[in-house]
Amino acid sequence: MLWPDKVTICEVGLRDGLQNEKVLLSIDEKLELLDMVVASGIKIIEVGSFVHPKAIPQMADTEKLIQRMKKVDGVEYRALVPNLKGLERAHAAGLTKAKLTLSVSESHCINNFNQTPLEMMAGFIPCVEYAAKHNLSLSGALSSAWGCSFEGRIPAAQIEKIVREYLKLGITELSLSDATGMANPRQVYEVGSYMVKTFPEVKWILHFHNTRDMALSNILAGIQAGITIFDGAFAGLGGCPYIPDATGNVPTEDVIHMLHEMNINTGVDLSKAIATARRAKEMVGHEVASYVLKAGRCEDLTNIKAQRQNNR
Amino acid sequence: MLWPDKVTICEVGLRDGLQNEKVLLSIDEKLELLDMVVASGIKIIEVGSFVHPKAIPQMADTEKLIQRMKKVDGVEYRALVPNLKGLERAHAAGLTKAKLTLSVSESHCINNFNQTPLEMMAGFIPCVEYAAKHNLSLSGALSSAWGCSFEGRIPAAQIEKIVREYLKLGITELSLSDATGMANPRQVYEVGSYMVKTFPEVKWILHFHNTRDMALSNILAGIQAGITIFDGAFAGLGGCPYIPDATGNVPTEDVIHMLHEMNINTGVDLSKAIATARRAKEMVGHEVASYVLKAGRCEDLTNIKAQRQNNR
Repeated sequence: MLWPDKVTICEVGLRDGLQNEKVLLSIDEKLELLDMVVASGIKIIEVGSFVHPKAIPQMADTEKLIQRMKKVDGVEYRALVPNLKGLERAHAAGLTKAKLTLSVSESHCINNFNQTPLEMMAGFIPCVEYAAKHNLSLSGALSSAWGCSFEGRIPAAQIEKIVREYLKLGITELSLSDATGMANPRQVYEVGSYMVKTFPEVKWILHFHNTRDMALSNILAGIQAGITIFDGAFAGLGGCPYIPDATGNVPTEDVIHMLHEMNINTGVDLSKAIATARRAKEMVGHEVASYVLKAGRCEDLTNIKAQRQNNR
Repeated sequence: MLWPDKVTICEVGLRDGLQNEKVLLSIDEKLELLDMVVASGIKIIEVGSFVHPKAIPQMADTEKLIQRMKKVDGVEYRALVPNLKGLERAHAAGLTKAKLTLSVSESHCINNFNQTPLEMMAGFIPCVEYAAKHNLSLSGALSSAWGCSFEGRIPAAQIEKIVREYLKLGITELSLSDATGMANPRQVYEVGSYMVKTFPEVKWILHFHNTRDMALSNILAGIQAGITIFDGAFAGLGGCPYIPDATGNVPTEDVIHMLHEMNINTGVDLSKAIATARRAKEMVGHEVASYVLKAGRCEDLTNIKAQRQNNR
């Protein structure tokens, strides 16, 4: 098995975590979380999205959030944008990185966006032109890459087709996303290895939800496939659009904890990541699916017991 | 990565799941669960333990349970026994397989059993003689093999020492157990590979708790190390003796679901395993940490959506 020295964590809690929450956080609360994320040492942060506020009211203040946040050097702040209008707004707010997104599944794409994946891709051409003109970087997401609630398992060829379209547009940072938690580690290893080998020019990011508890296994399999960048959301916020009460994104702190236990560096201070998760949990005001938030780190257990022993 | 055709699941819910429950199930309830486990196709079942009823009242009726249960051909029923007295009771009740257990960690062993691991091992000699005389098979468990709340990470050499002691007694089925959920997949792969290579005569079983969400990853890593037998407990019952409210054993149905998604056969009917978990949850009367019980199988999601589409 492969054990890279370093794995990179992208924090998507402010976007994919909060967008599924019933409670709308204030900008001050979001800024507090953002500060904590930055302080923990995470260098890639998805701060929000520029979608229609009626569709996702939780993200309606993304513009203001970007205007108010202090940008720390060395941290990449990105927002999700579905089209040129979103990109223009992100740019106007002061962001230099945006993530385009479409669904690899034709049925899902048509159902959600009323367009086929290729029609959506055509809509990205003006985004690419706009980005070039204003010196913005673009990332491309392939949602439903690992499974679709309409189409089931997605064949690798279907992913590959969309990857090639992104590459035609010159977008070489690509994220394979699993919002319904249907990916399994064998699939991640097999499809991931194929993609890494076929497209060595791509910077791959994997995005997993822990709907069926396979997210950490999928990250492990992704690492074996040679991928070293993974999304996570503090406290495991988020959910699944089709399953009420399903668990959401893989909790950032659980990912970091596992990696550190495996002697893989993330550059993140785990205690601070746990503190972020704890604060996020307080803000949303309900139980969350984070494990280390509940059980503590392995070393905490040993320390507690050692202390008790010493106190005897 | 390795993808064996077949992986074997041992159901330990009736023992390691229920022994941590506040509610004491009746023998009838336990028999109902046992019938469901057998009907799901699981072939190795840990039905209880012969420990002192004051220490673990949940297991006080193991003797009666064994006397009343109907033994299905081809199913291996085992109980955990700490010493000769336990083994004699198991035999008297009609069981032909027992699992001895000790902790690899000296501090943990002394704290729990008031004996060192080697002193406990010496106590197993009469068990081996008794088993030979009465034609019983013995399995050996090494608890705290992956981490100890007193000693932290356990070095492989410490596990190896106990393995050699078990082998001296002629016990070649060995289970490496992680009741505090401290194992991580790199460790499982590295220690597991070493053990498989060093002791090819051993039939290895891995027992993980999902305390910090690493259990499925650990199973994946165990498979990569060449191990194909894993314990699980219906609905993920159980817990951690040192962490209140921590999640317990890895849920059997989540293990089976992941393996089936990976095209690895378990011989178990997943729907029936989910039904067992649902019934166990009803009996204990509280929320459980099972994922597929809550989110359903991947295919359920696709089926539901497909049906909705067809009904439009």
